[in-house]
Amino acid sequence: MLKDRFIADIISSKYSLLGGRVRVCGWAHRIRDLGRLKFVLVRDRSGVIQATVKRGESPEEALRAAEDLKLESVVCIEGELRRAPTREGVEVKVERLEVLNSPVEPLPLEVEGSEKASLPTRLRYRWLDLRNPMVSAIFELEAMVAKVFRDYYWSQGFVEIFTPKIVAAGTESGAEVFPVVYFDKTAFLAQSPQFYKQFAVIAGLERVFEIGPVFRAEPHHTSRHLNEYHSLDIEVGFIEGYNDVMNYVEGFMRAIARMLEEEGRRILELYKVEPPRIPASGIPRIPLRKAYEILEERFGKKVEHGEDLDSEGERLMGAYASEELDSDFIFIVEYPWKVRPFYTMRKEDEPDWTYSFDLLYRGLEIVTGGQREHRYHRLLDNLNDKGLDAESFQFYLDFFKHGAPPHGGAGMGLERIVMQTLRLENIREARMLPRDTERITP
Amino acid sequence: MLKDRFIADIISSKYSLLGGRVRVCGWAHRIRDLGRLKFVLVRDRSGVIQATVKRGESPEEALRAAEDLKLESVVCIEGELRRAPTREGVEVKVERLEVLNSPVEPLPLEVEGSEKASLPTRLRYRWLDLRNPMVSAIFELEAMVAKVFRDYYWSQGFVEIFTPKIVAAGTESGAEVFPVVYFDKTAFLAQSPQFYKQFAVIAGLERVFEIGPVFRAEPHHTSRHLNEYHSLDIEVGFIEGYNDVMNYVEGFMRAIARMLEEEGRRILELYKVEPPRIPASGIPRIPLRKAYEILEERFGKKVEHGEDLDSEGERLMGAYASEELDSDFIFIVEYPWKVRPFYTMRKEDEPDWTYSFDLLYRGLEIVTGGQREHRYHRLLDNLNDKGLDAESFQFYLDFFKHGAPPHGGAGMGLERIVMQTLRLENIREARMLPRDTERITP
Repeated sequence: MLKDRFIADIISSKYSLLGGRVRVCGWAHRIRDLGRLKFVLVRDRSGVIQATVKRGESPEEALRAAEDLKLESVVCIEGELRRAPTREGVEVKVERLEVLNSPVEPLPLEVEGSEKASLPTRLRYRWLDLRNPMVSAIFELEAMVAKVFRDYYWSQGFVEIFTPKIVAAGTESGAEVFPVVYFDKTAFLAQSPQFYKQFAVIAGLERVFEIGPVFRAEPHHTSRHLNEYHSLDIEVGFIEGYNDVMNYVEGFMRAIARMLEEEGRRILELYKVEPPRIPASGIPRIPLRKAYEILEERFGKKVEHGEDLDSEGERLMGAYASEELDSDFIFIVEYPWKVRPFYTMRKEDEPDWTYSFDLLYRGLEIVTGGQREHRYHRLLDNLNDKGLDAESFQFYLDFFKHGAPPHGGAGMGLERIVMQTLRLENIREARMLPRDTERITP
Repeated sequence: MLKDRFIADIISSKYSLLGGRVRVCGWAHRIRDLGRLKFVLVRDRSGVIQATVKRGESPEEALRAAEDLKLESVVCIEGELRRAPTREGVEVKVERLEVLNSPVEPLPLEVEGSEKASLPTRLRYRWLDLRNPMVSAIFELEAMVAKVFRDYYWSQGFVEIFTPKIVAAGTESGAEVFPVVYFDKTAFLAQSPQFYKQFAVIAGLERVFEIGPVFRAEPHHTSRHLNEYHSLDIEVGFIEGYNDVMNYVEGFMRAIARMLEEEGRRILELYKVEPPRIPASGIPRIPLRKAYEILEERFGKKVEHGEDLDSEGERLMGAYASEELDSDFIFIVEYPWKVRPFYTMRKEDEPDWTYSFDLLYRGLEIVTGGQREHRYHRLLDNLNDKGLDAESFQFYLDFFKHGAPPHGGAGMGLERIVMQTLRLENIREARMLPRDTERITP
């Protein structure tokens, strides 16, 4: 390797490294030329360090190489680590400077402060935007959330699964799926691993999780929707009810909050945001019918009885949870049957309502889940009741013929969790390369 | 939860649990009816335990419930854990038996011994096939390999990325991609995250990994190919050469071997296979031109100079590595330029050969990788030389205009690693729900 350590590691070990020779590889982040003296800020994924090239101090060869340096040139620098009045308290006295590659065209976007450019420009030149530490931090956090997800569910006895993304039918109806030309067959991109995570539970794996892409052919132009995103999915068998599923979701949210208070702290500080609050008594669970009352009484917002919340309703319930319950999260539970998919289990005593929930995080839905109908004949009834054709779901119904345990699960939006944590304005900021109605490149 | 612990946990704690009451939930795996006495083997993901219902010992209600029991009924059983002459040394004396769900149709495939049924039948009724512990073990191993992959690269400073699967162009040429109807645009399913993992490195993340689905529209009918599989991808910047990439691949293989010798041992024993051998001196790295000689001299197999190895050639080189080098792995390095993709870096002194490698595991290619061309003008030359139209790759070329570091990487087939580890005959066995020219369901 050309590089043996990251800049942040050098800085955090500076007291033992001072006076010794270090090697730094990265990009020329900022260049200040004072004639005989040249300061180069070198940036890598982990941080920035100052390198100083000085006539009379640095060798002739390094001086010449420094002349060729442009912003965003790729460099490796070797030299003594010494004290200096920089933010890091140190700098590298350049003894060797190698330019590995240099821009062949002017930069269409400045890396420093790229977050202030327009979002379309940033996404167009995303490889430059991402070099901005404010931006790369978003994706480091995304990776950390994914890691917390897997570690938490692994610790709870869940098995990771890898389900097909090429499917024969949409999860709900024919709409909002992308067709794929698959040999001589009609196929679609999976909107969710819903059917197949249920499959895995019924097939005896009992507790499963998956992180994978999902595809939604909705022509949305909102700041909260993507046509391709990553879904964090769980499904668990032998539940007593949907509260068991919520407990598993809550456990994950607590694990995220812990991570944010520890390793994630640096990223929160960059964005000047606080870690999420979760009451010691647990995330509040409020029936939708109670939410109707709260919205009307507190905010004067009327929601038709039996209807879903719109985004304003979610936002207001988020405000209520924050102000009244001291919580950044709130579960809304028992959604009406008519707004939930056919595989949802209906309440035994009130079949117009379901054992389902959404989790709002700072007023945005980030999780949806519930108990599923596992009884074959009830599932048929549910399909009928929704006016869906049982035949097109036969491959799915088949799973339920030979002993399906009671089960439930949840799907969580990775990008939305990151977006709400850092209080980003647009979900596209939390997706490295977003796909929407306008974008299939870069 | 209906279930507080897995059967294997009960058995492994049997000495402290003996004489106490336990609760077991799972499927009725085997039922033996001796009139007054009924033995039920209950199976869950982790193991099997005997439950005994006996007239005069078990309550009337449990006796009645046991009458309704069918093979693969979903049950929860409570009772005293006591010594018994079973393989586990214990059984549950049934005090309560609850049937949660029962098959509504006869079983089209017997769970016990399902591995002996034909593969098409097994795949057709995969939810029953998977309940066979021989089969579920494959997917537990797959999850463990994925975990080892992430843990290893995370420990090496790699960041997880989530790249788009909807893309504007194939990684190599227009062939062998599945078209997607994406709003008013022509789009394809990604054959590999190749372009986007390079993007992430160039965009400053430096070292990245991803596990995700890849899609190959090859109308193959072989036991080694799938049209959708999961790829383990890495890409790393600031390499000195392709040996750095091989070192990272080798580190992962060693981590897999360690896992197989420890937690994975049980699964290897089920399949009566040994963990893979890796020489202490490292996985051998043999130039393809040397492999030509070995194949001809040792096996009488002639490969045209400058051609790729076919599957027989790979198999024979695997045999050579096993017999002569005491290794289940062998790197073949320096493939000809004409058989590698345009983004491969050509050897500086021999431009007809490349800084590329394949890793064979027991005679099957499981990894392909190499150093990539990071210099903009060289990339243009490479495209030209391959007769490819630079325009259709412009969005990719753009990444290289503003300072791309030297980098390389590898893509590894998750299912192939599992297949070779357990010496499975068909890669479909290592994919929960394979997609091929005939199958888009279940």
